[in-house]
Amino acid sequence: MYIENINNPGDVKKLNINELNSLAAEMREALLTKLSRHGGHFGPNLGMVEATIAMHYVFDSPRDKIVYDVSHQSYPHKMLTGRKDAFLYEEHYDDVSGYTNPSESEHDHFTVGHTSTSVSLACGLAKARDLKGEKGNVIAVIGDGSLSGGEALEGLDYAAELGGNLIILVNDNDMSIAENHGGLYKNLRELRESDGKADCNLFRAMGLDYIYVNDGNDIESLINAFSQVKDSMTPVAVHINTLKGKGYAPAEADKESWHYSGPFDIKTGKPVYTSDAEDYSGVTADYLLSKMKEDKTVVAITSGTPTVMGFTSDKRKQAGKQFVDVGIAEETAVALAAGIAAGGGKPVYGVYSTFVQRTFDQICQDMCINSNPATIVTFWGSVYGMTDITHLGLQDIPMMSNIPNLVFLAPTTKEEYLAMLDWSIDQTTYPVAIKLPGGPMVSDGKAVTKDWGRLNTYEVTQRGSRAAVIGLGTFYSLGTQAAKLIEEKTGVKPTVINPYYITGIDEKLLEDLKKDHDIVITLEDSILDGGFGEKISRFYGKTDIRTLNFGFRKEYLDRYDVNTVLEANHLTASQIADDVTALF
Amino acid sequence: MYIENINNPGDVKKLNINELNSLAAEMREALLTKLSRHGGHFGPNLGMVEATIAMHYVFDSPRDKIVYDVSHQSYPHKMLTGRKDAFLYEEHYDDVSGYTNPSESEHDHFTVGHTSTSVSLACGLAKARDLKGEKGNVIAVIGDGSLSGGEALEGLDYAAELGGNLIILVNDNDMSIAENHGGLYKNLRELRESDGKADCNLFRAMGLDYIYVNDGNDIESLINAFSQVKDSMTPVAVHINTLKGKGYAPAEADKESWHYSGPFDIKTGKPVYTSDAEDYSGVTADYLLSKMKEDKTVVAITSGTPTVMGFTSDKRKQAGKQFVDVGIAEETAVALAAGIAAGGGKPVYGVYSTFVQRTFDQICQDMCINSNPATIVTFWGSVYGMTDITHLGLQDIPMMSNIPNLVFLAPTTKEEYLAMLDWSIDQTTYPVAIKLPGGPMVSDGKAVTKDWGRLNTYEVTQRGSRAAVIGLGTFYSLGTQAAKLIEEKTGVKPTVINPYYITGIDEKLLEDLKKDHDIVITLEDSILDGGFGEKISRFYGKTDIRTLNFGFRKEYLDRYDVNTVLEANHLTASQIADDVTALF
Repeated sequence: MYIENINNPGDVKKLNINELNSLAAEMREALLTKLSRHGGHFGPNLGMVEATIAMHYVFDSPRDKIVYDVSHQSYPHKMLTGRKDAFLYEEHYDDVSGYTNPSESEHDHFTVGHTSTSVSLACGLAKARDLKGEKGNVIAVIGDGSLSGGEALEGLDYAAELGGNLIILVNDNDMSIAENHGGLYKNLRELRESDGKADCNLFRAMGLDYIYVNDGNDIESLINAFSQVKDSMTPVAVHINTLKGKGYAPAEADKESWHYSGPFDIKTGKPVYTSDAEDYSGVTADYLLSKMKEDKTVVAITSGTPTVMGFTSDKRKQAGKQFVDVGIAEETAVALAAGIAAGGGKPVYGVYSTFVQRTFDQICQDMCINSNPATIVTFWGSVYGMTDITHLGLQDIPMMSNIPNLVFLAPTTKEEYLAMLDWSIDQTTYPVAIKLPGGPMVSDGKAVTKDWGRLNTYEVTQRGSRAAVIGLGTFYSLGTQAAKLIEEKTGVKPTVINPYYITGIDEKLLEDLKKDHDIVITLEDSILDGGFGEKISRFYGKTDIRTLNFGFRKEYLDRYDVNTVLEANHLTASQIADDVTALF
Repeated sequence: MYIENINNPGDVKKLNINELNSLAAEMREALLTKLSRHGGHFGPNLGMVEATIAMHYVFDSPRDKIVYDVSHQSYPHKMLTGRKDAFLYEEHYDDVSGYTNPSESEHDHFTVGHTSTSVSLACGLAKARDLKGEKGNVIAVIGDGSLSGGEALEGLDYAAELGGNLIILVNDNDMSIAENHGGLYKNLRELRESDGKADCNLFRAMGLDYIYVNDGNDIESLINAFSQVKDSMTPVAVHINTLKGKGYAPAEADKESWHYSGPFDIKTGKPVYTSDAEDYSGVTADYLLSKMKEDKTVVAITSGTPTVMGFTSDKRKQAGKQFVDVGIAEETAVALAAGIAAGGGKPVYGVYSTFVQRTFDQICQDMCINSNPATIVTFWGSVYGMTDITHLGLQDIPMMSNIPNLVFLAPTTKEEYLAMLDWSIDQTTYPVAIKLPGGPMVSDGKAVTKDWGRLNTYEVTQRGSRAAVIGLGTFYSLGTQAAKLIEEKTGVKPTVINPYYITGIDEKLLEDLKKDHDIVITLEDSILDGGFGEKISRFYGKTDIRTLNFGFRKEYLDRYDVNTVLEANHLTASQIADDVTALF
């Protein structure tokens, strides 16, 4: 085995072309084995094996700096930069993260997990190099799917102006997570079909030099191309045509399903774990499809991640023109939704909590200043969501709840969610966002008749005294558990409140609590700073009411254990009950 | 005069070509007169007179919908859509805002003031039209300067895929606010120089149809071009070459200075009001230029607004390679700064508070998750800043102060600012942002020796008892005034604190205050929700300390009077003193 002897990129350079091809086969085998047992980003990494070998053969990392976009395709790079054990030996699988990570290796320059950043970040490294009068190549690796993101397009535009060495490796596998959407992909196709010779060329139109490699999985062609641009003193795009999922037939055949995979049986391609449980993704698509049939102006919008809102390819087909994928372009997704709402349509944009972060300004300007009644639904915004540092869902409350005019709602059950969504789609007054709770979906079958248009009206679900527990979204049920424990410990039954509205205070209810309560606590599934609870503490600041805000410390967690984090933040029912009863 | 008889676009259609040319001359004259007396966006509007006339001649607004990007160029549109009086008669000058505004007219579809949104918003209107089965043209008007923004490039990419009618009018005057920066501008030049015939074409590369109009100030050519694309069933870019500032020699000669102008003498072009007072813009550039001479790795970054950080064209020349304008591309500006910091350079990105909103995700991911020690300086983030609804500076505290790992500082004087900036540039540990105060710059000449690396250490500037006044940034001096009044009213001298750090609590000091204080108030020049004061209220929530948070209600103000707004938010010294002494 060659891979066992690769401890750094220098070891790659010692191999001849046949040996490099063998190395590629071994790496692909190791990836397949690890991913079948462990899960991870599948297709992008299988497609990039040869290009990664060729890069490390030609360039001299870490003097030459390689910056991976979104870093879904960085596993082969990790294998060649001293981290092979994490791919060869099951007991080491978790030694590395799924993304580039400077704390793992000097060959990684950024912790990256959001798309479309590599060109701009690489421009920064190149600029620093030039300011310091140093030498070396800077290589940005970006997939075709990431190219539609505004930051990537801005970066391509600026790169031409940067001057000096910058190599932009465009890994074109003709796929985003799902199929690509956008006009630029027609141009990429023209370029592929003309062997890079089409006169109209997006990269040249952005002011860049350009070369094309038709077989982006052929190590020899790649080595030739990279050698040609090495030490180039002008920014150049190297466009390579690769096969997503290469080497594993099911992944080559169904690229969308194999972008990311959980553990699976290599022989059959079948997943090891399956679940028929209803979840918020499926519920969303089913509800919207039914609503679309009644109303031709209802339209679902995604920015490159259709399945998070349940729109698998069959459901996208059913929706037809009433489903829009703008490509990875979150800003445009919000602006488009705002425009559709302004034009009298009924848009619903479904997005991961971590990716809605791209749209702060568009929510403010396009939606809220204009009071355009579009709906945003955020998924996975919870401690129970994704645990990689780049994909946390713990910032959406501070980010969104302080934007004027936005109505940000927190359902606790399927029934509340669908009632909110239905109201939001049909009303024409407010920009609305809905924060889906984390953890398993709760469905209690209760009919929800609340008029959501009566803003900031909380619901008292248990009337008690002395202490009031306001449990927002995911943590409403934690609040009810804590209330039970408080009652057990003190004999006093606390009041329990489901606030629903993240963006406003139910002043009447909070005033009313003063009569027979002296403690009010809040629980939220988000960073505390700038969040929901602080608004309650401000409200009661000048009164006798004691307040306690439960939520997460302001910090970036990484690959955490949920229960450990909950406990570290006093977010177990017994800790909450202890903290509250200490004030009795 | 023709303009006096134009009450709606229908009146434009009645004129023949000679009359339209006369109308253009009258409109230009009116613009010149109004802007010389009133100030406003100058160059962009003078360049768009003919194109606006031609649009209203060919299209049928409001059935055909025109969406202006950033809407710096919408004055001629306002003149032709029932709002001419606001340009003809001085007593009506303030009847209209400086931006498109649906509450003024059915011919405006969005309140727009940030760049690069028109294509995506127009896509929304077009999509709504198609969902509803309606007809009509949708026209996005975008300047070449706005094209470098990520949202605009995303929009161009998505537009091609939208299908159906969408006309993108690219108003190319070969200028942004300052000169253009980015590779795409080479392509625009090739297109202009080849009469639109160059094979490599950014718009075609984005999948759009394309036509070119070489004289974008010739009404007849424009009418022909617009007639050709009217009712087009595929998205098409109409690229017109206009002259920024056309018709006023000083503006044609110095396009940057005349992008926006205050009142001026028409004969000489000299401004009516001038000031030699030092301000934070000038101080920033001077400090950075001097720092750049000592240290070749210091680099100033702007995203298309160099003068906000004092970099007029002469100072940009002095800075040479140590000044970077990425074009209007805020996301890339932050990512570039993060990359430069990662590479060991010392970047300072200066940006209007209102435009930093584009970078929430980049601050989180590229700067803070990676702990890249870049510096952002926000200008005009204050009630004393810009008062148009689209340009408010009252959201940066909620937006930025809750991001983990960011050190967000609030100086109150020039001396504190420069000490913070100097520290931030040289330290290599923290991502830092500095929020400049509003109002006239205070300079007290005091040497500042504080070690800013001792995070979250507030300064007690007056030691008192019972009440503590924590005055952040701009409102520190308001806090000292309020403290004086409190002392006058009660005989008790309050403690006064300059907190400096927006992102953290000085727990030791706040604990210490408990000994001989029972009231703690906070003052901040920002929306209260998600802000600084709420963190103090949370801290004291379970104690006997009463807290009061002073700041602004969560709302979008528009063209406000500062004193009225301060009073409405209990932000005068006497109101604050009254509120505090009521708790004594």
